[in-house]
Amino acid sequence: MVPELEEGLPFGRIKDFSLEELLGMAIKAEVGAREFYISLARRVEAQSLREKLEWLAGEESKHEELLRKIYENMFPGKEVLFPKEYIGPELKPVARELTKVEDIVDLIRWAMEAEEIAAKFYAELEKMVEGKDKKRLMRYLSDMELGHYYTLKAEYELLLDWSMYSQMMHVGP
Amino acid sequence: MVPELEEGLPFGRIKDFSLEELLGMAIKAEVGAREFYISLARRVEAQSLREKLEWLAGEESKHEELLRKIYENMFPGKEVLFPKEYIGPELKPVARELTKVEDIVDLIRWAMEAEEIAAKFYAELEKMVEGKDKKRLMRYLSDMELGHYYTLKAEYELLLDWSMYSQMMHVGP
Repeated sequence: MVPELEEGLPFGRIKDFSLEELLGMAIKAEVGAREFYISLARRVEAQSLREKLEWLAGEESKHEELLRKIYENMFPGKEVLFPKEYIGPELKPVARELTKVEDIVDLIRWAMEAEEIAAKFYAELEKMVEGKDKKRLMRYLSDMELGHYYTLKAEYELLLDWSMYSQMMHVGP
Repeated sequence: MVPELEEGLPFGRIKDFSLEELLGMAIKAEVGAREFYISLARRVEAQSLREKLEWLAGEESKHEELLRKIYENMFPGKEVLFPKEYIGPELKPVARELTKVEDIVDLIRWAMEAEEIAAKFYAELEKMVEGKDKKRLMRYLSDMELGHYYTLKAEYELLLDWSMYSQMMHVGP
């Protein structure tokens, strides 16, 4: 386990929370993921990977905005409720120096796990929300997170062979 | 079927081509996909979708560059061989006015299909190439295309309800 990741509740515990609480958790998770990707991008020298991380950060930011709109639509005028708990791994900003490529590889692997759980999380919310519109939006978020998962998986597989990665992806001077 | 898509050979025909020919097909397909996404982006008003399409175009461009390096590494000094045939659907630039959202929805659905076949295509090349390095690169490309597939799928599902899409994704004046 890395310090940027806190293991939350097992996925099955999703049933213990209200839709309002789960939306709050989702917003918190999108904020956490954005901060994680931004902080990681700052510590990564490989341009290709840095650009992907910045792109992911931007996407999570749009998801946060979308979720806040959905929340406002479902609970008009109410402040967002952020439960203390969260489901699955929670990403936190990277505050340490990353000295070895293995450090980056580890973080990417955890981010993959977080994205995979996020996709499952939204698929579960799709079942819980009422109305075609909201179901569609949850499906959208679920698919997007799955897209992130595969984008990260692609980088992860290449990073496992750093000498090749650096040669193929224009890394270094 | 839309005019921007030509149905190529069935996937099973991949066995009839040499690795050199398949790499040539892959390069051609990446170029075609980039041109398709760029031309589609120009004809789409919704900013969120346009940005995604531009991002996809940029990614396909990087894939082309990577494939050319792999080709040069495997067949040094040889000009790339572009077979007449291709496997699966081939995307072509969008040269017509798109007047209805259904036109865009159709094109996105075909692009999803092309990305899905591309992911399978690279997974097949992963089996064919020799050496860990090249296998990793094919796995990378396969995962990236799968990432594109889910990114497009997300947009597709939302586009099916245009009034909601335009409301949620800041479309229009």
